[in-house]
Amino acid sequence: MKRTNYCADVTAALLSTKQTLCGWVNSYRNHGGVLFIDLRDRSGICQIVVEPSRPFFKEASAVRSEYVLEVTGIVQRRIEGAVNKNMKTGEIELVAEDFKVLNTSVQLPFEVENSFGVSEETRLKYRYLDLRNPRMFANLYLRHRIAQAARRYLDANGFIEVETPILTRSTPEGARDYLVPSRVHHGEFYALPQSPQMFKQTLMASGIDRYFQLARCFRDEDLRADRQPEHTQIDMEMSFVTIDDIHTIVEGLMTEIFKTAGKELKTPFIKLPFEEAMEKYGSDKPDLRYRLELKNASDVFAQTGFKVFADVLAGKGAIYALRGEKAGAYSRGQMDKLTELVKKNGAKGLVWLKVKADSVEGPAAKFFTAQELTAVKELVGAQNGDGIFIGSDLNKRTVQNFMGALRKELVKELPKQCDWAFAWITNFPLLEYIAEEDRWDAAHNPFTAPVEEDLPNLEKDPGSVRSYQFDLVLNGNELASGSVRNCRREVQERILALMKHSKEEAARRFGMLLNALEAGAPPHGGIGLGLDRITALLAGEDSIREVIAFPKTAQAVCPLTDSPNVVDEQQLTDLGITLIQEK
Amino acid sequence: MKRTNYCADVTAALLSTKQTLCGWVNSYRNHGGVLFIDLRDRSGICQIVVEPSRPFFKEASAVRSEYVLEVTGIVQRRIEGAVNKNMKTGEIELVAEDFKVLNTSVQLPFEVENSFGVSEETRLKYRYLDLRNPRMFANLYLRHRIAQAARRYLDANGFIEVETPILTRSTPEGARDYLVPSRVHHGEFYALPQSPQMFKQTLMASGIDRYFQLARCFRDEDLRADRQPEHTQIDMEMSFVTIDDIHTIVEGLMTEIFKTAGKELKTPFIKLPFEEAMEKYGSDKPDLRYRLELKNASDVFAQTGFKVFADVLAGKGAIYALRGEKAGAYSRGQMDKLTELVKKNGAKGLVWLKVKADSVEGPAAKFFTAQELTAVKELVGAQNGDGIFIGSDLNKRTVQNFMGALRKELVKELPKQCDWAFAWITNFPLLEYIAEEDRWDAAHNPFTAPVEEDLPNLEKDPGSVRSYQFDLVLNGNELASGSVRNCRREVQERILALMKHSKEEAARRFGMLLNALEAGAPPHGGIGLGLDRITALLAGEDSIREVIAFPKTAQAVCPLTDSPNVVDEQQLTDLGITLIQEK
Repeated sequence: MKRTNYCADVTAALLSTKQTLCGWVNSYRNHGGVLFIDLRDRSGICQIVVEPSRPFFKEASAVRSEYVLEVTGIVQRRIEGAVNKNMKTGEIELVAEDFKVLNTSVQLPFEVENSFGVSEETRLKYRYLDLRNPRMFANLYLRHRIAQAARRYLDANGFIEVETPILTRSTPEGARDYLVPSRVHHGEFYALPQSPQMFKQTLMASGIDRYFQLARCFRDEDLRADRQPEHTQIDMEMSFVTIDDIHTIVEGLMTEIFKTAGKELKTPFIKLPFEEAMEKYGSDKPDLRYRLELKNASDVFAQTGFKVFADVLAGKGAIYALRGEKAGAYSRGQMDKLTELVKKNGAKGLVWLKVKADSVEGPAAKFFTAQELTAVKELVGAQNGDGIFIGSDLNKRTVQNFMGALRKELVKELPKQCDWAFAWITNFPLLEYIAEEDRWDAAHNPFTAPVEEDLPNLEKDPGSVRSYQFDLVLNGNELASGSVRNCRREVQERILALMKHSKEEAARRFGMLLNALEAGAPPHGGIGLGLDRITALLAGEDSIREVIAFPKTAQAVCPLTDSPNVVDEQQLTDLGITLIQEK
Repeated sequence: MKRTNYCADVTAALLSTKQTLCGWVNSYRNHGGVLFIDLRDRSGICQIVVEPSRPFFKEASAVRSEYVLEVTGIVQRRIEGAVNKNMKTGEIELVAEDFKVLNTSVQLPFEVENSFGVSEETRLKYRYLDLRNPRMFANLYLRHRIAQAARRYLDANGFIEVETPILTRSTPEGARDYLVPSRVHHGEFYALPQSPQMFKQTLMASGIDRYFQLARCFRDEDLRADRQPEHTQIDMEMSFVTIDDIHTIVEGLMTEIFKTAGKELKTPFIKLPFEEAMEKYGSDKPDLRYRLELKNASDVFAQTGFKVFADVLAGKGAIYALRGEKAGAYSRGQMDKLTELVKKNGAKGLVWLKVKADSVEGPAAKFFTAQELTAVKELVGAQNGDGIFIGSDLNKRTVQNFMGALRKELVKELPKQCDWAFAWITNFPLLEYIAEEDRWDAAHNPFTAPVEEDLPNLEKDPGSVRSYQFDLVLNGNELASGSVRNCRREVQERILALMKHSKEEAARRFGMLLNALEAGAPPHGGIGLGLDRITALLAGEDSIREVIAFPKTAQAVCPLTDSPNVVDEQQLTDLGITLIQEK
């Protein structure tokens, strides 16, 4: 290797030394007969000077953007006026003594430094160009460091990395499986795992004690904005633990990950019971960087003459109010937009009021007594110039949900109390009732254990049974979901029965796990953290596609490789399958 | 977490302290009214004592193999006669003060410590039981340590771990692809990658500079004894490097990996040109722990009257001889077996001789002159009591191959010169001619660069062009294959043209890579090392299945999950495919 340094490492400390750099032509200009080339590699940029007297001057003058060069030269200080204080190498330049074009480049559809200005389709199609943008390299490098920090921490804490199969059998977790036809066994299929859930629990039954894996997971979903067909999970499972043990390990892990990104975290994270999260923030993944809280206003309107609220309260529904800081100045148009927002989230309407110096006004103000208006103003802590938003519904969860959506919108105008607000959401119910199918379903994960003392009520009152399920949320994002699992086959089978899986079907779909549970499975629990989302948050990127080297579009297409794509008829024949002719 | 220690960490250093252990009942016995339980976790075994006076004595007496326990007790010294010096915890026992059965176990089909005595099918079906065997845990733990050491080393050397897609487009590397039908785009398919080759080269074009990944690779092959549908590769690629740079990095990597297994390596590894390997060992992955070498005997038999050899030499064929140490004592049956072996490897026959004190004998001895017999004996260095094996064929490669197979058999009787014999096999030809298809094919990898000075002969004399391809072999196993790649589209297209890919087909199959090459790809090269094989060798296991948590059988089946398996008709309909009805 002739290269002696990365471009950005050639600083004034190396003055007068000979260095060899390799990289790409970021830009070039001829200035008074002297050629200046900004040479770029993953570290940054170094300025190359080619004097007209050099034998390679003509060759150097012919370089164009993105040509690949190897340049040997002497590090010298730039002349006074040419120093760039904003650049690591801004004090020096490399005066070329040897110059080689290692490769040329065709003309390209966009400039590396402008790649964020072109369409995503174009960026993905020319991803090799897009990834040369320093912002993209920084994202991938951050992801690398996060992955190494995670492994280092888990290794140091006695976790063992075990690879679980990609070609396996369907893990029934709600989404569709990607299927892989077997050539050797016609008519049979492998499935790509939606998560290593059953394997990691089996590893606990195998006495591995502490397992982790940066696991690729696959979900054939109708793609929403920021979902990918494959994503990576920091996946772990531990034996002989309580919820608190898992929380402590994950808090240490997040601390290490944040440290690698230069950020300090305070632990332990707060624990917020699910019901409290819904009551205060109208969300099971509240953004706790903001103080704003929903207020239950049922008491305020207990005697109200406003028919909508009165009916709601008579029907044991709920009324919540939110302060809208400075929303007293919102236009009718803004208020209509907020009303639209809550309607999209299940509301039938939204009452809004504006707080003035001596009064509370608004189209609905006339329905309320002065006492009610004062009480609701005090309840939410509204000041002169603020707005008040009041929502109601016969179903408490519905009003929590749409007022939570409103809160999410309102906090955009508020000051952040901190940069990183973590919380454990705990005390989820084990099961929820699916009315249309007359059965219970796992509120989160069918393998989560019920709280031990609620076990006797499992069949009597399934909805009342609490679980050892928890989520980790950060700034309004769900980062991870975990639980303590069922370690007894009998309990697992009772839960599956409530979910209306027959014994036969349970054995067919979950057989491996059920067999492992009855063969001496230890108490165990675990969690899976979304690596893509964690990286995107730390990189300050809105989309996880910015932290994945080769992502797919929302249509599950890779424009770079043009996949998926048609295959030879013979390949399908070999697999014993054929296409259905569509009309 | 109540547990204070792993079982095997409770040694005499902890005498008189209170400890809580969790684990599995490895064995139990009632000895004079006192109950002894060997409790096992991943660390090893600790002896638990339950005295008859304890309130939990009855519960403890009911435990059976593989029950899961949590025991708190006081560490005490065993009585004199009960000390077991072969056990880490052999001096102590834990006298139970608190005792809890955390889970029971049904009766199991084999005992953990006897798992290697049952059929592989049974072991894989009850893998959760099989993995409790300390030998299996040691294998997985070794694999974990190797993976961490590899990443640590590569990270320290500036490599960045980048995840490449699993759902992608076919990489045409000889084997069949596993296909995944797209639900969103009916009639189109993703393919699982046979390796990340094209992606890692694209990452070099993206300026990543140094990439690595512990990458899952998929090959839908007709399974041979020790192949798996999916395997893991320590995959890497570097920019601006020569072959020697890659070798140095990999030698450092192997040194670290071996260190983690407590073994010291000497570097640099020897470099053995492909032709020399074939000439001396009859193999491109010779087992260099043994000194035995093939000897070219063409000169010895230049004037021979033995028609077979004379015809071979007249036809520009080759004759090779091998010493068979102490093979003078082999029976006729043994000689017949060796003859069968070479025939299976392409030989028409095998001449064997036995060296006596004053003569060289054997069925074919009468065809040779005394001078020839003496010369061949000296050539191979045979002593009284040895055998001599001579093979010939009109095709030199054929005789090298079958004599190489014979060497592999003969060395089994020889003393090893060292435990770990690494070598780089270098100077492979770029292309080899496929007579049946009248075209050239890549001898290894279609992306390997030709040696620069041979480039002008690429079309004139393709067979003469050398390549920057190399293999890493260890003890007769190919661990890795690597090369410096083509970084110019024009050269890559010329090679693909010799392989009879039309420009259109090349663009269709290799488009992403060709486009990346012409967009300013740097010179680059890399390698992929088989993690499964490396781990198996260091674990002393013959089969890679012993170092994979959940392997598949030779029929590509997982007996634990019973995959592959049938799926619902509806799932296929959703994917736009249907099964071909077989007659």
